[in-house]
Amino acid sequence: MSTADHAARRAALRGLLADRDLDVLMVTDLLNIRYLTGFTGSNAALIVDASDEPGAENGTLVCTDGRYVTQVGEQVPDLRAVIDRASAAALIRRLSERAGARVGFESHVVTVDTLADWQSIAPHLTLTRTPGLVERLREVKDEHEIGLLRRACAAADVALAALIERGGLRPGRTEREVGRELEFLMLEHGADGVSFETIVAAGANSAIPHHRPTGAVLATGDFVKLDFGATVAGYHSDMTRTFVLGAAADWQRDVYELVLRSQAAGRAALAPGVPVGDVDTASRSVIEEAGYGELFLHGLGHGVGLEIHEAPGIGKAGTGTLLAGAAVTVEPGVYFSGRGGVRIEDTLVVREEEPELLTLTSKDLTIV
Amino acid sequence: MSTADHAARRAALRGLLADRDLDVLMVTDLLNIRYLTGFTGSNAALIVDASDEPGAENGTLVCTDGRYVTQVGEQVPDLRAVIDRASAAALIRRLSERAGARVGFESHVVTVDTLADWQSIAPHLTLTRTPGLVERLREVKDEHEIGLLRRACAAADVALAALIERGGLRPGRTEREVGRELEFLMLEHGADGVSFETIVAAGANSAIPHHRPTGAVLATGDFVKLDFGATVAGYHSDMTRTFVLGAAADWQRDVYELVLRSQAAGRAALAPGVPVGDVDTASRSVIEEAGYGELFLHGLGHGVGLEIHEAPGIGKAGTGTLLAGAAVTVEPGVYFSGRGGVRIEDTLVVREEEPELLTLTSKDLTIV
Repeated sequence: MSTADHAARRAALRGLLADRDLDVLMVTDLLNIRYLTGFTGSNAALIVDASDEPGAENGTLVCTDGRYVTQVGEQVPDLRAVIDRASAAALIRRLSERAGARVGFESHVVTVDTLADWQSIAPHLTLTRTPGLVERLREVKDEHEIGLLRRACAAADVALAALIERGGLRPGRTEREVGRELEFLMLEHGADGVSFETIVAAGANSAIPHHRPTGAVLATGDFVKLDFGATVAGYHSDMTRTFVLGAAADWQRDVYELVLRSQAAGRAALAPGVPVGDVDTASRSVIEEAGYGELFLHGLGHGVGLEIHEAPGIGKAGTGTLLAGAAVTVEPGVYFSGRGGVRIEDTLVVREEEPELLTLTSKDLTIV
Repeated sequence: MSTADHAARRAALRGLLADRDLDVLMVTDLLNIRYLTGFTGSNAALIVDASDEPGAENGTLVCTDGRYVTQVGEQVPDLRAVIDRASAAALIRRLSERAGARVGFESHVVTVDTLADWQSIAPHLTLTRTPGLVERLREVKDEHEIGLLRRACAAADVALAALIERGGLRPGRTEREVGRELEFLMLEHGADGVSFETIVAAGANSAIPHHRPTGAVLATGDFVKLDFGATVAGYHSDMTRTFVLGAAADWQRDVYELVLRSQAAGRAALAPGVPVGDVDTASRSVIEEAGYGELFLHGLGHGVGLEIHEAPGIGKAGTGTLLAGAAVTVEPGVYFSGRGGVRIEDTLVVREEEPELLTLTSKDLTIV
């Protein structure tokens, strides 16, 4: 990302502020600050002044503490930086001098205590709840971001292929060993980090949707469910594949086939303008018609980007429609408690044409 | 941890609720829920009823969603569980039936929007800001927790020794390679995970207090600063060591010796009842007297436990005193911008006698 890209995002945000008649947005979510400025430190606040002009952002200020003096200068050369450990409170103090300013804040992130603190610092400031504004911008990825998501997905694809090629998925190993090796392989193959703690769930554990790897030993005939992802420059990938070890029983083939069809139906429903609830229904109805609707224990998917879970949520109760450029997962599952389960998950980009598949590992039933 | 241990923690919490004349505490911080119940899922809320009796906690309820039905039954067999995706909102709805109940909530964690949502669900409920109550209990570790911290610190100690023994810290490697190997070695030696992204900072980068590993290559004569930790059963270790590659220059010996003396003074000041500001001063004054006070860019330390940073904060502006059983870091540093820096950090437990050192790696200047 160049400083010009970040400036363009701030310009887009100013459009949203003008719509809401706000003079300033106080941004305290660190990922939103990263998105708007490129700053990656662990303590920061940002005020975006709606009246600033591109190239002369005099009212827009980033604040961080002494640890990041060098870093903020390098990462955000185009904005004025305030060095103050109190970050957001320091910027509120500055805003308190602007009588009558209408200040929006990220009420979905700011705690009740923090708001009370700000109100005591600046009792005359009008603070307006303004949730999710930057997240709305983040929902639509630009091609640079999609390039990073592609790289994150590729790191996961290559790591999984390498794991299988070297015989890493075999009876006798523990879930924990497999998870550790898969994470190491992602880092070897281009990942900066892992998206979340890798799920490795063997045998009956595969029926637990979000199982943490244990010392349980992989055995012939087991389903082995791997749910994992890589990060590249802050962007996350997310993929689930379910394998069978040694030989597949008929019930395993049946449930796999069912989830595969459900997943394909969900992917096929991805298009700009489609209500997210319809995408969930397209996938879920396949499983419901087979009589297993109650065993599909979770929503169909979620957005991915700077967070592993971000807008849009794709579930039964989801509202809103898909936007072109949104990056989402499609991940139906069927779980037979005590026996085993299957989930198949891809990360894709919603496009005007077909959705673009970013996780490229085969979804054919694979017996290893 | 046994269920009895968790029940004892809830009993202690009820004492704090009685002091505040509260009928119920709504707990939404996931680590606090883990501390009070043992539940480790990613969606949960808990109401602790102040009037419950040990062994018959009928008003105390945990809530999670359908993914965790099995898990909540296994991890929290002694409490009633509500299965509802809305978790906290679902429990607020139940509380709304209890007219006049005085409900405390974690206002340091709950967002402004969440509180507004609760108020619309239960307009007649009296919700009282009650920050940090469970965190106060968590500040004092019991011997079981200290045992886990000891194991987490040991995993880091052994991994660092293994890294050095196998020649992993040598000119020609990149910061990123060293970080990855150190993390892998912690997992090989008993860690469940890493406490945070390992800091490996070589040469001039060592002057950046919180440097992220890059492709920068280690060179003879460099300071190499490693700040890293392991987790065991959710408990974090935190340690920093600074090495010199090949041969140490006089200025490097001098600054190392200074930071070492400062760190020893900080450790020596740890005792129950000592104001945290005095601990900071004990360590910082050594560096200030040498004329480098302005190059010590951060606070002296922080509590560690279920979080890598938790109460108590130990800095210039810190308030409160140390408690026996608190686990804290002591980590002074001196940073010469563009040249290099030294930080030395241990994790220790405050004891009535001497503080107990948990990170056992030598702090003698080590040239590798």
